[in-house]
Amino acid sequence: MATVEELKLRVRELENELIKCKQRRSSEEQNQPRGRIERMSAEVVDSNPYSRLMALKRMGIVEDYEKIRSFTVAVVGVGGVGSVTAEMLTRCGIGKLLLFDYDKVELANMNRLFFQPHQAGLSKVEAAEHTLRNINPDVVFETHNYNITTMDNFTHFMERVSNGGLEEGKPVDLVLSCVDNFEARMAINTACNELGQIWMESGVSENAVSGHIQLIIPGETACFACAPPLVVAANIDEKTLKKDGVCAASLPTTMGVVAGILVQNVLKHLLGFGTVSFYLGYNAMLDFFPTMTMKANPQCDDKHCRRQQEEFKKKEAERPKQEVVQEEEEIVHEENEWGIELVSEVTEAELQAASGPKPDLPEGITVAYTIPEKDEGASSGQTVEETDQSLEELMAQMRKM
Amino acid sequence: MATVEELKLRVRELENELIKCKQRRSSEEQNQPRGRIERMSAEVVDSNPYSRLMALKRMGIVEDYEKIRSFTVAVVGVGGVGSVTAEMLTRCGIGKLLLFDYDKVELANMNRLFFQPHQAGLSKVEAAEHTLRNINPDVVFETHNYNITTMDNFTHFMERVSNGGLEEGKPVDLVLSCVDNFEARMAINTACNELGQIWMESGVSENAVSGHIQLIIPGETACFACAPPLVVAANIDEKTLKKDGVCAASLPTTMGVVAGILVQNVLKHLLGFGTVSFYLGYNAMLDFFPTMTMKANPQCDDKHCRRQQEEFKKKEAERPKQEVVQEEEEIVHEENEWGIELVSEVTEAELQAASGPKPDLPEGITVAYTIPEKDEGASSGQTVEETDQSLEELMAQMRKM
Repeated sequence: MATVEELKLRVRELENELIKCKQRRSSEEQNQPRGRIERMSAEVVDSNPYSRLMALKRMGIVEDYEKIRSFTVAVVGVGGVGSVTAEMLTRCGIGKLLLFDYDKVELANMNRLFFQPHQAGLSKVEAAEHTLRNINPDVVFETHNYNITTMDNFTHFMERVSNGGLEEGKPVDLVLSCVDNFEARMAINTACNELGQIWMESGVSENAVSGHIQLIIPGETACFACAPPLVVAANIDEKTLKKDGVCAASLPTTMGVVAGILVQNVLKHLLGFGTVSFYLGYNAMLDFFPTMTMKANPQCDDKHCRRQQEEFKKKEAERPKQEVVQEEEEIVHEENEWGIELVSEVTEAELQAASGPKPDLPEGITVAYTIPEKDEGASSGQTVEETDQSLEELMAQMRKM
Repeated sequence: MATVEELKLRVRELENELIKCKQRRSSEEQNQPRGRIERMSAEVVDSNPYSRLMALKRMGIVEDYEKIRSFTVAVVGVGGVGSVTAEMLTRCGIGKLLLFDYDKVELANMNRLFFQPHQAGLSKVEAAEHTLRNINPDVVFETHNYNITTMDNFTHFMERVSNGGLEEGKPVDLVLSCVDNFEARMAINTACNELGQIWMESGVSENAVSGHIQLIIPGETACFACAPPLVVAANIDEKTLKKDGVCAASLPTTMGVVAGILVQNVLKHLLGFGTVSFYLGYNAMLDFFPTMTMKANPQCDDKHCRRQQEEFKKKEAERPKQEVVQEEEEIVHEENEWGIELVSEVTEAELQAASGPKPDLPEGITVAYTIPEKDEGASSGQTVEETDQSLEELMAQMRKM
């Protein structure tokens, strides 16, 4: 039988072990977030998470990097592209992020960046907010775990785009579409046309080897309803696909590149540097990156798009002549029914061949960038250079050959 | 004074508390990794982390995706590009990863993807291995926390490249250079020339708005010593920069895009699909992606490069004529001393202007893609199209204008 002395020793041992166990747990927890930072500083010390971003000023790239903190961006769809998009904006120190998604994290998502196996089962917005807040507690997060395409949620989504800015009541600065289905894209398009909200579209093809981003300025550039050929996975979304026992392919590479070029263009647009692309494609098979501009379609089905076009025309008419002329020239292209100008060194046939054979998918699915048959004959080879100097450049190149 | 009964009660209490504390810690830890998966399956269920990758087969993109598990890739430099590169390969289910870095995670790295604030102070390879193993326990990891440029470490590095394959004693399949300084690039170059090891170079400019990847096949394409104009941050690395109270700018976007195009080309090279780029640049200001090919320089300073060139010539001479002729044509370019062919729609002056003014940096630093002054006059505008059809295409474009 144990003596009092033995028991006292055992109590002391256990007390020490318990303290150690609690310390270990607490240090594991405390380890996580860094403290908040009141003002961005350019100081070059290891502990400053903003030094490499503020260096963009000294490098002459961005005039006022701190301005990033005044912007609010809404990211719709927190999947393979949206999650990386949100992480990049968080690490860049964006002011506020609104995240919309109704999906849960699954192990089947682990072939893309961002989510980790231990988050399986959590809602994507909840898991994303937790990770992002740890990465940068200076960002304000607002998450909505719902499907924006249902009636009530759509109304709420519109309200948040209009009022969810850093200062409540002010609109967000930009909406990013990172969704994987047609309905959600159309919902964002409808909302942004009605509100006159600038947004950017992104997409990745079902065969995982091409993607694109697109800037949509309501009334000025083609909206999602203006230019049907860019529809990705028309009418059938991931959920339907999975029911049929098939799924779209995806790669962390293609999705990382699309998120990268998307957020790069967001930074250029918000902070005013470089040239923002209206449309930038990525063909991974050929490392080919086509750019194009698309004018709004006067016959667009969306009445708010047509209204925005009228308002844009009025505004343009009031602007000094010189600017107007140049812009009009850039987007007019008579030989193409969608007003699409493709800057391309590769023929469409080559591009199509490079995307691989059309996969065996349920009816209604089309791979992004597969050009509808009726257009093929008419548009093949009708590509033109976009820049003003292209004629002189072509001449110079011709002379050398 | 405590009685035996009181002490016994206290021991039981403490034992229970300790069990609970240990359980809590263990469940927090257990939460993390998923179980190992013996064979990759294409089954479309939420719990299969490989379903979206195996779908590449059904889509007709990759013939044998499972083969990814047989490959070993060495990643040198686990910073802004290397960490994301390693994560993409891990999520793609690569067989084995060797990671080399001697740096520690700092809060100043948080403007790039991958590392998180709670990892500050850990070695980059240790922190990376922990995260990557949780993401995909099917990958074999080997990490080396050292600087490959010192004599002893360089010998060890060579040994691991030669013997660190999935089956010990076999060489790795590919070496990826994701380093930020000249010495480390030269060390990798020297090792790979000596071993005849295929590798890929990557880099991001100090102003954060351009980057590139390059495939180097010893003896066949230009090695890092063959073509000096591509030197990034010549002779001065991040550590030196920081001592002077300045640092290079960096962006998660540019680094994400560079990692994405790098790993995409790794997948194309290893799994045999699409076209692997010899050199692919990224100019973020213009969304311009130049490609080029560079032949090995017969006057290269590296004797092993010259030896590999001799061996390549011999092998080529033994190959059927038809193939040889085509390849030679592609890489010959007489008007350029480095044998560089630039596929470009943008003039070099435009490109240079778009990179922003030359930043105020210590002597010896040059921004990537700033063309050395002596070449400017000679090479400006001497860009040619790379594809065989370029003449016809240019003619066709000219006729339309």
